Amino acid sequence: MFAVEVRDHIMIAHSLPRPVFGPAQGMHGATFVVDAAFFTRDLDEDGLGVDIGAATTVLADVLKPLNYQNLDDLAVFKDTVTTTEVIAKYIFDQLADAVAAKRLGPGSHRITRLKITLHESHAARAWYEADL
Amino acid sequence: MFAVEVRDHIMIAHSLPRPVFGPAQGMHGATFVVDAAFFTRDLDEDGLGVDIGAATTVLADVLKPLNYQNLDDLAVFKDTVTTTEVIAKYIFDQLADAVAAKRLGPGSHRITRLKITLHESHAARAWYEADL
Amino acid sequence: MFAVEVRDHIMIAHSLPRPVFGPAQGMHGATFVVDAAFFTRDLDEDGLGVDIGAATTVLADVLKPLNYQNLDDLAVFKDTVTTTEVIAKYIFDQLADAVAAKRLGPGSHRITRLKITLHESHAARAWYEADL
Amino acid sequence: MFAVEVRDHIMIAHSLPRPVFGPAQGMHGATFVVDAAFFTRDLDEDGLGVDIGAATTVLADVLKPLNYQNLDDLAVFKDTVTTTEVIAKYIFDQLADAVAAKRLGPGSHRITRLKITLHESHAARAWYEADL
Amino acid sequence: MFAVEVRDHIMIAHSLPRPVFGPAQGMHGATFVVDAAFFTRDLDEDGLGVDIGAATTVLADVLKPLNYQNLDDLAVFKDTVTTTEVIAKYIFDQLADAVAAKRLGPGSHRITRLKITLHESHAARAWYEADL
Amino acid sequence: MFAVEVRDHIMIAHSLPRPVFGPAQGMHGATFVVDAAFFTRDLDEDGLGVDIGAATTVLADVLKPLNYQNLDDLAVFKDTVTTTEVIAKYIFDQLADAVAAKRLGPGSHRITRLKITLHESHAARAWYEADL
Repeated sequence: MFAVEVRDHIMIAHSLPRPVFGPAQGMHGATFVVDAAFFTRDLDEDGLGVDIGAATTVLADVLKPLNYQNLDDLAVFKDTVTTTEVIAKYIFDQLADAVAAKRLGPGSHRITRLKITLHESHAARAWYEADL
Repeated sequence: MFAVEVRDHIMIAHSLPRPVFGPAQGMHGATFVVDAAFFTRDLDEDGLGVDIGAATTVLADVLKPLNYQNLDDLAVFKDTVTTTEVIAKYIFDQLADAVAAKRLGPGSHRITRLKITLHESHAARAWYEADL
Repeated sequence: MFAVEVRDHIMIAHSLPRPVFGPAQGMHGATFVVDAAFFTRDLDEDGLGVDIGAATTVLADVLKPLNYQNLDDLAVFKDTVTTTEVIAKYIFDQLADAVAAKRLGPGSHRITRLKITLHESHAARAWYEADL
Repeated sequence: MFAVEVRDHIMIAHSLPRPVFGPAQGMHGATFVVDAAFFTRDLDEDGLGVDIGAATTVLADVLKPLNYQNLDDLAVFKDTVTTTEVIAKYIFDQLADAVAAKRLGPGSHRITRLKITLHESHAARAWYEADL
Repeated sequence: MFAVEVRDHIMIAHSLPRPVFGPAQGMHGATFVVDAAFFTRDLDEDGLGVDIGAATTVLADVLKPLNYQNLDDLAVFKDTVTTTEVIAKYIFDQLADAVAAKRLGPGSHRITRLKITLHESHAARAWYEADL
Repeated sequence: MFAVEVRDHIMIAHSLPRPVFGPAQGMHGATFVVDAAFFTRDLDEDGLGVDIGAATTVLADVLKPLNYQNLDDLAVFKDTVTTTEVIAKYIFDQLADAVAAKRLGPGSHRITRLKITLHESHAARAWYEADL
């Protein structure tokens, strides 16, 4: 299996209003450094799994509506607790839609799997990985 | 599959008294930067795979008896060659026990897999990953 | 010159309500990975510039009132634009006070300089460095 | 599953003469920081999956003919577009041959899988992972 | 002293045709991950040393003519051996010109010093740092 | 000022038998990832501050007698507490001797300053920096 992974980041505010989150129940924030990996079983005739330029552009497009936002105010996260895992899954779903819409170029149909990793600090990260 | 991964470290001495280890047969040591990943198939109603705080605490608890030790002196490693792989497997087993004992919180039963990575330098690391 | 540097992090929300900040004028947030370096001209009789354990504890103490907070709500930042540079200087001042109060141990008087670096993403950081 | 991963790097020139590569069609270059992971189901009687020293040596041997080269001039890449993915697969094949030739030591037969990761910048990487 | 540092990268080919470079005399290449630090003695009324957005844009502008190029073909490097140090100094000079031209915003005059670091691999880097 | 910095590492055991070290008083160990920076005011006619190859070789030569050792057994550290700071200074002195002996090549006399950084974990490091 081949994979191409590109990195970007978002800086967001949110609250996690459930007792389990202790001091993180109030309004706070995070930088999420986001790695998006696109998996393919083979390469196209140009030697590409996914074009890194296209992957970078699509990831930036997906992240833009989240960047510099208070996630508590976004309709897409209404009644949702925006943990790192939940945001990873949300970005996964958005990128899966982009793959389905062939926004990763003519070889989009060859992408069979995605892995989205969110680094929330130097000491913690979470990811969601699944077949498309 | 979701995963939450937390990082900590230990600083240990040990010897590797077998000919294959060449210059590492004598007493020397290592900092192991330890990444522990906890995998779940879904998230709980708080949006959590595993609580990062609980994961951090349990990893610290597991590492504490190893930190600042000479592994050659520890009963748990008697007659064992404490390679990076062996220590990764030992930490895996300890964390698997913690999961079984529900020390990762009420959602402990949802953890299906662990991956334990030990970085021994900027140029080498080893890991053990398996289903529980 | 010797230096000992320790790392910790905070996860905060804030707004930057000035036109120059463009999309960052609204409520958003950041993880700041914080490196605090303590400089000394020489070492004490135990071979220490600063005890890494003490440095880690004091840095954690200084960061605790900021962690998981909305900086817009904190009295210490009233009428202040909490840029990365401003927060670096604030942490510098707090650590300078800790040094003056000998909270870094009996050798605190030997610390002549501090450098506080805040990494706000994989692609940007800021620091403040000055003599005490 | 156990894995041992070692890191090295190469500095190469190449061109990517297909329209999809846009500004990268001309002669340019890259540093590839290469991580090679060797997977085994169990450990030998010395506690090893693969000897890190042997893995480091074999990886260096495989990279040497590529390092400081213009890949456009190498016979092994004739009529090949040397994308990051293609080079990852090439290094995989070379290491698979080394495993088959037992160049990883007496336990070479125990290696069941390889993962070769090429970091081309702080923001992009690609890998090829497969069973042997 | 305050500093704001931003990161970008270039992927270039070049040759180093002098005997001292041994295997690097021929055409090869590098990814240079570039950190540009802008130093100021104080902050402006918005709490800024340098605006990170402006710094990122100006660094990208300076790097663009170098990215994906064969440096041997560029007029600016005619009769120059393009070592990592030389390229660091070249980027320094370009950024110094940008500061002088007030391309870093109205506070450009407050920038007193630059440090340009080029990481050529995980194991080597070079920098040039000087007052303006 | 120019600088060229190269990275290597050592894996050592030692004890720190003074009360201030608490749990680190007994035999334990560390991986020290070592960065050695060589400063020059200008570049030679080949565009070099220091040749990275020569710097890498000399650093490896200096580290070799320490690697895989129990520092408590080494004559050079007799009656010395081998803190990270002390080892950084020791490596500085060895590299300063190498510079004085012109082991960094014909341009050795141009090196005016060294900075030796020892990373002992992902969360702590120490350095010694001084003019020659």
